[in-house]
Amino acid sequence: MDFESLKDKPAPAPEDRRAPLFNDFGLGGNVGRKPGTRLINNDGSFNVVHRGKTKRDSYKLLMDMSWLKLLATTIFTYVMINLVFSAGFLIIGTNSLSNIDQDWQLWRRALACFFFSIQTFTTVGYGDIAPVGIAANTLASLLALFGWVALAIVTGVFFARFAQPGKMIAFSKKALVAPYNAGGFSLQFRIVNVRDTSLINVTARVMLTWIEEGNRRFSPLVLERDTVPLFPLNWTIVHPIDEKSPIIKWDYETFCRQRAELLITVEGYDQTFSQPIHVQNSYIFDEIAWNARFKPMYLERDSTTEIWLDRLDDLEELGE
Amino acid sequence: MDFESLKDKPAPAPEDRRAPLFNDFGLGGNVGRKPGTRLINNDGSFNVVHRGKTKRDSYKLLMDMSWLKLLATTIFTYVMINLVFSAGFLIIGTNSLSNIDQDWQLWRRALACFFFSIQTFTTVGYGDIAPVGIAANTLASLLALFGWVALAIVTGVFFARFAQPGKMIAFSKKALVAPYNAGGFSLQFRIVNVRDTSLINVTARVMLTWIEEGNRRFSPLVLERDTVPLFPLNWTIVHPIDEKSPIIKWDYETFCRQRAELLITVEGYDQTFSQPIHVQNSYIFDEIAWNARFKPMYLERDSTTEIWLDRLDDLEELGE
Amino acid sequence: MDFESLKDKPAPAPEDRRAPLFNDFGLGGNVGRKPGTRLINNDGSFNVVHRGKTKRDSYKLLMDMSWLKLLATTIFTYVMINLVFSAGFLIIGTNSLSNIDQDWQLWRRALACFFFSIQTFTTVGYGDIAPVGIAANTLASLLALFGWVALAIVTGVFFARFAQPGKMIAFSKKALVAPYNAGGFSLQFRIVNVRDTSLINVTARVMLTWIEEGNRRFSPLVLERDTVPLFPLNWTIVHPIDEKSPIIKWDYETFCRQRAELLITVEGYDQTFSQPIHVQNSYIFDEIAWNARFKPMYLERDSTTEIWLDRLDDLEELGE
Amino acid sequence: MDFESLKDKPAPAPEDRRAPLFNDFGLGGNVGRKPGTRLINNDGSFNVVHRGKTKRDSYKLLMDMSWLKLLATTIFTYVMINLVFSAGFLIIGTNSLSNIDQDWQLWRRALACFFFSIQTFTTVGYGDIAPVGIAANTLASLLALFGWVALAIVTGVFFARFAQPGKMIAFSKKALVAPYNAGGFSLQFRIVNVRDTSLINVTARVMLTWIEEGNRRFSPLVLERDTVPLFPLNWTIVHPIDEKSPIIKWDYETFCRQRAELLITVEGYDQTFSQPIHVQNSYIFDEIAWNARFKPMYLERDSTTEIWLDRLDDLEELGE
Repeated sequence: MDFESLKDKPAPAPEDRRAPLFNDFGLGGNVGRKPGTRLINNDGSFNVVHRGKTKRDSYKLLMDMSWLKLLATTIFTYVMINLVFSAGFLIIGTNSLSNIDQDWQLWRRALACFFFSIQTFTTVGYGDIAPVGIAANTLASLLALFGWVALAIVTGVFFARFAQPGKMIAFSKKALVAPYNAGGFSLQFRIVNVRDTSLINVTARVMLTWIEEGNRRFSPLVLERDTVPLFPLNWTIVHPIDEKSPIIKWDYETFCRQRAELLITVEGYDQTFSQPIHVQNSYIFDEIAWNARFKPMYLERDSTTEIWLDRLDDLEELGE
Repeated sequence: MDFESLKDKPAPAPEDRRAPLFNDFGLGGNVGRKPGTRLINNDGSFNVVHRGKTKRDSYKLLMDMSWLKLLATTIFTYVMINLVFSAGFLIIGTNSLSNIDQDWQLWRRALACFFFSIQTFTTVGYGDIAPVGIAANTLASLLALFGWVALAIVTGVFFARFAQPGKMIAFSKKALVAPYNAGGFSLQFRIVNVRDTSLINVTARVMLTWIEEGNRRFSPLVLERDTVPLFPLNWTIVHPIDEKSPIIKWDYETFCRQRAELLITVEGYDQTFSQPIHVQNSYIFDEIAWNARFKPMYLERDSTTEIWLDRLDDLEELGE
Repeated sequence: MDFESLKDKPAPAPEDRRAPLFNDFGLGGNVGRKPGTRLINNDGSFNVVHRGKTKRDSYKLLMDMSWLKLLATTIFTYVMINLVFSAGFLIIGTNSLSNIDQDWQLWRRALACFFFSIQTFTTVGYGDIAPVGIAANTLASLLALFGWVALAIVTGVFFARFAQPGKMIAFSKKALVAPYNAGGFSLQFRIVNVRDTSLINVTARVMLTWIEEGNRRFSPLVLERDTVPLFPLNWTIVHPIDEKSPIIKWDYETFCRQRAELLITVEGYDQTFSQPIHVQNSYIFDEIAWNARFKPMYLERDSTTEIWLDRLDDLEELGE
Repeated sequence: MDFESLKDKPAPAPEDRRAPLFNDFGLGGNVGRKPGTRLINNDGSFNVVHRGKTKRDSYKLLMDMSWLKLLATTIFTYVMINLVFSAGFLIIGTNSLSNIDQDWQLWRRALACFFFSIQTFTTVGYGDIAPVGIAANTLASLLALFGWVALAIVTGVFFARFAQPGKMIAFSKKALVAPYNAGGFSLQFRIVNVRDTSLINVTARVMLTWIEEGNRRFSPLVLERDTVPLFPLNWTIVHPIDEKSPIIKWDYETFCRQRAELLITVEGYDQTFSQPIHVQNSYIFDEIAWNARFKPMYLERDSTTEIWLDRLDDLEELGE
């Protein structure tokens, strides 16, 4: 069998064959065609659920959970580990720990073991309770080593969370169809650096996706400028709706009927944290304002420029 | 002697001279020509053994070994270090440690020294045994400093292992020769992000290598699309077998006889871990399925898309 | 409503429409037009003040403050945390801490609680004071865990500050208009690696900005060479003032009247710290010397080259 | 004064004017012209001495010094810090430390203070000596906090040194002028990955520099292939000496007289350490072997390939 002989076979339907070439931007050609579906959520995550053998990173979990949940998880793990080890000390016998009276009730001895375990695990080691004999000393030695490893994880996770940059770039809530050049229009949205850090070499890419004849279509949108070397203020990202634009003939109704969605990726480099940043966002059809314009976000002062972040969404409606 | 005079010398054999230009992709022109050899293993590592003065990184060893082996290594080192230091305390004399009875047998005093050493090394320092005199105090001071350094290594290695991303990208077990466009064919395989993380800017490169007339040949394969900006679902990587393809005339028998192997590198950027990822894989001739097609891996739900990772290898055989 | 119908609307003023295309390098077209304003300060930061909902990173704050302020902040936080916890121990009752005499005055018991708190928080745990009973032990256990988290932050911040490279690249204080080729001129400045590290792949970009008819204009300046693969010595960055240069017709008075400013970004890779570096700088009109030349900064020795960093600003005035 | 009027001034000498354009690759046009000077040392560092206000990074110093020197520095600092703090405890008075007999001689009390200081600094805190009173407790509290900061530095430096990859890429000791194609020649050298790690996307750049008429000249050399996607074995980097090569007319004597030096930069990405690597090297005229050829470094085995690192320098001399 070679390719020549295979060619006599009935070919798949044309629609199917063209699909991978034109429709798949790594997002799949048949994805999210149901009404009410968007591809990228407003927090920048993909609207995709993983099923099957997905591996979950405990590291990622610890990095992404809320501080409160992390604290609860930490305390819970801390208590559980020390419960296990204190059970070990109880089994060895509390006469192998100094200053525990053998006449005490079990719960009291258990509690003493638990607190001794914690004192060893954290390497506090007051010494008012101390291990006596080989078994207790061996268990305590293991416990202290275990404490080191736990400290490694706690140190790493808490510091990594503390040091990781938060959300850097805010997007305007709405994208606009705004007047542009003499009598023309453009599709635009704006972004701003919400933190007091230096972002440089910021690049934006915009794709339009919509549902046409039951299939999801994709088309990149050409931008007037796709990179800024410095990003201290706001940046309005503009797609001119000219002859080459795929949306030159579209009106508001087309946007809605085809459930159009703008997929946006913004990349840059954060000088403060010395690392690249990458954010996504999307605007679906009902997040696009027609015939409006952004108001300026900054004020000129005598020797500086002030940028007002809460004016990110200030629009001027130009009416129908 | 200049180049002109050297030119009169007999030139090396033509086969030899052309070799570096056409055959060496950093993999060497004469490499792996024996039957049964593949260049890249299924785990992505190179099928190469280093001999001679290879330096092994203890860091790499600690990062790559299994968790169990790491734990064993850690405990072993921990015990060994403290054995050495406890021998030091024994030599100084156990009368320089408080609460050790000089009438105890040697083994009992040695054990006390050992556990005291561990208490100092881990900075637990209960204090039930404490150093007395200059020699013991000096040794204990050194030991505590040594403990810091050991803690540094333990903290670093355990956290780095904990925080390092595992395998991100899974490859389909088989590459396919699949119908493509009207009557055509393509060579394809698919990949999926197995973790719940965001991979972006994913790029694939495919090289074909085979043995022809006793020499290893290499040829890059042109891909229909070699980059996807976002990678939340699966991605089918397609080489169209058209007139420009080096395999347009090949049949299954050619693949086998020439021991063809597809070498694949995939690069991207992991948003969760803020670092680039690079994976390799290869398909050898008997890992290529003829005239088959991948079944979809995802389902459209009302407001989201579900991807089923265990369907990565679901094929539809189209028969001879 | 489609784009055709919108086109009948009155278009915005031409000045306004052209603004985003020609004036906005991510710095905004109307920015800093008041006399006395510069866009980039001499320390490389942007001359921009953020207002409104700017989020301040406590991490960034801790990284950027002076060592003295960091030390003060650390000690202050350390004292505050332990004051809170020692209040907890006081409330539980000092009879739950060993070796505290109930007859002592409140302040003395409070102090004992405070120092006990610190001993637990830092995991020193002398044990001369030790917790007795469930409440005190529980609080001490929490405190030790809290100490871990605090140690994580302290470890991370102090080490990150210690390990972060300081300022690498120094710019000459003045840019020059210097003789160049036969009868020509160039705009130039020079940079030097002030540290004993290896910088490679260093790239410079220069933009000119000025105020014309009340609007801020931008224009990139073409460089004779914009990249050096190795940067062990100094590098003079040269813009030839030829027919294609936007400043071919400018004289000193033009520079001043239009409040010209050179915006410079330099990128590279630091081999010692294995990380990219990015610095900015700017020269405003009164930081440009006319008809001058840089003197060499290095001396040839018998088997090496010496570079003298304090000669970075050595100029030779060539007169009017 | 504008540029037109400046043009009437006498122009600098032609030699001078052309210098920056043709001779300065960031290495300076007049650099290292004395006999016996090379630009890059065999360890890859630049042959440049910094004078004047060079800032030295204590971090870089700690990273680059030998392990023995680091250990000595660590112990020295450890002793000095604790000497200072123990002097503090002596000044406060040894009656504020428990278990120190006031009748002891000064040196004995000083030693006790010193060891107590160390026990606090390292957070061992046996408790056999414990602070009594406000002054001693306050100093001990500061000392423990100081210990945290010191631990941060020690943890960071030791782990960073432990985790940093060592030298990855070895260069052959000699570059060769070797036969190439039919009757031609090439300048070549080879490199190998000396570690058991995965290097990918490796790129080489070669510049030739020489002294001509008292000036240093530079010229890039075109390579047959300048990038390999995978680098599991060795790679021979080849500059064909053809009509376009700047050295087509050179003989051995020219190389020596002009003190030619090959400057090489190799970049790549290390998958094991997830970081870019950059190395430099150079070959001076007497490190170039004429009319020789590299022998293979690897052996084909039944199901793998063996690379022998100690064969990196195996040459076959082809005679005059």
